[in-house]
Amino acid sequence: MTTTVTASASPVEARLRYREGLAVPTSGWATGFAQANLVILPREWAFDLLLFGQRNPEPVPLLDVTDPGSFRTSLAPGADLRTDLPRYRVWRNGELVDEPTDVVELWSDELVSFLIGCSFSFEAALLEAGVPVRNMEQGRNVSMYRTNVACRPAGRLAGPLVVSMRPIPAALVARAVLVTGRMPQVHGEPVHVGSPASLGIDDLSEPDFGDAVAFDDGDVPVFWACGVTPQAVLMASRPPFAITHAPGHMFVTDIPDSAYRRP
Amino acid sequence: MTTTVTASASPVEARLRYREGLAVPTSGWATGFAQANLVILPREWAFDLLLFGQRNPEPVPLLDVTDPGSFRTSLAPGADLRTDLPRYRVWRNGELVDEPTDVVELWSDELVSFLIGCSFSFEAALLEAGVPVRNMEQGRNVSMYRTNVACRPAGRLAGPLVVSMRPIPAALVARAVLVTGRMPQVHGEPVHVGSPASLGIDDLSEPDFGDAVAFDDGDVPVFWACGVTPQAVLMASRPPFAITHAPGHMFVTDIPDSAYRRP
Repeated sequence: MTTTVTASASPVEARLRYREGLAVPTSGWATGFAQANLVILPREWAFDLLLFGQRNPEPVPLLDVTDPGSFRTSLAPGADLRTDLPRYRVWRNGELVDEPTDVVELWSDELVSFLIGCSFSFEAALLEAGVPVRNMEQGRNVSMYRTNVACRPAGRLAGPLVVSMRPIPAALVARAVLVTGRMPQVHGEPVHVGSPASLGIDDLSEPDFGDAVAFDDGDVPVFWACGVTPQAVLMASRPPFAITHAPGHMFVTDIPDSAYRRP
Repeated sequence: MTTTVTASASPVEARLRYREGLAVPTSGWATGFAQANLVILPREWAFDLLLFGQRNPEPVPLLDVTDPGSFRTSLAPGADLRTDLPRYRVWRNGELVDEPTDVVELWSDELVSFLIGCSFSFEAALLEAGVPVRNMEQGRNVSMYRTNVACRPAGRLAGPLVVSMRPIPAALVARAVLVTGRMPQVHGEPVHVGSPASLGIDDLSEPDFGDAVAFDDGDVPVFWACGVTPQAVLMASRPPFAITHAPGHMFVTDIPDSAYRRP
């Protein structure tokens, strides 16, 4: 078992392992530190995504945006965004073309990196508050769905809100709302509680992304804005070039999860 | 006295009067509705200001950012940003060149408008919570100061944090923190309480902007991030062209102040 090793790794140690080429999902690594989604775009497209984030802060909570060409982030001063994620995805005209373990060769002075809050941070807070997280109990990825709710468009970027869903015991729904409501930079409170049909979701057992997650008796489906939204919107709009993290292979920051909890 | 008329005017009525040419400060108009700072820039500079706002949300809380060329805002669907403020300022290369009552002739498809939260909203909340607002009692503008705290730079934009200062009775400082802390989109909680010297402020009676405000016995100076910051930073960096509201002549939105209070 490597769980103890990975959970007790510092963010610096974790990033060093990935920099050396280790290509594994980051779940369970450097417990207690926030992980972030990554989207990298040419400057000419970066304005649209920055505007999209300003207009849609629930699905696109921007934790940091770099200067064009910089591979440094305020979220981890020693890190190199070109090498320190375990795996990347490279996109050309909206098509996935490669999944390398670094993007040094692809770098240019035109690229702007967006680091976007991730629900891993609030799942830790839910557990700590005594709210079960079924997808973790079942060893599955969270269920995610496209909805009939449109994001506010920005420039060339438009598309539906994507939500993640977690089955929550009815008596703990209010607690789940309050706990995540204190964490707006990692998606905040639910956008919707119960009634999948009113979000245009016909069948919870067929998620658009991630895995189906089983309900316990008395669980209610609770929906949060999801960090997959910007990636889905972006890929639909087909920028000539983009880099993202590979699913589950996030950027491990130096910021404790607790820093994203409001007092 | 026109106070009653102006306070009871709806935002639509207020904007219509300004559109017709009335050029008066907006303080006291359309009570209960948020007013916003306005900065308009060519698209080529807009990326820098959007990034500056992302990195410095306390002094630059972005309530809305328009598409290039659009003079419509989600904060007031019927409004026209070219005509509906009582007075504008026009800047070329960082120099003030005109103070017109509309900017229709200056408009172009390249212009992006930034609507930025204003402390008028939290002053109303302070009064409602029983916290006196000395500058209002004394019929003066709030005191504002340049500090020795640097904002996080973005592209060509860099400069010091500007703060507003309000004298608060010592026993009500905590209440002022809690009330404004619930309003992050209009600057949020204080950045500093007491000790002007540690912000590099030598003499409270000589503000860099606004008026000196008298202290009552037992008042403590409390400092909030100020919406003058982006204008000061922007003018120092001398973009070729910019439009702003004239001081005190804000954009009256359709959004109730209460919408900017967190539950």
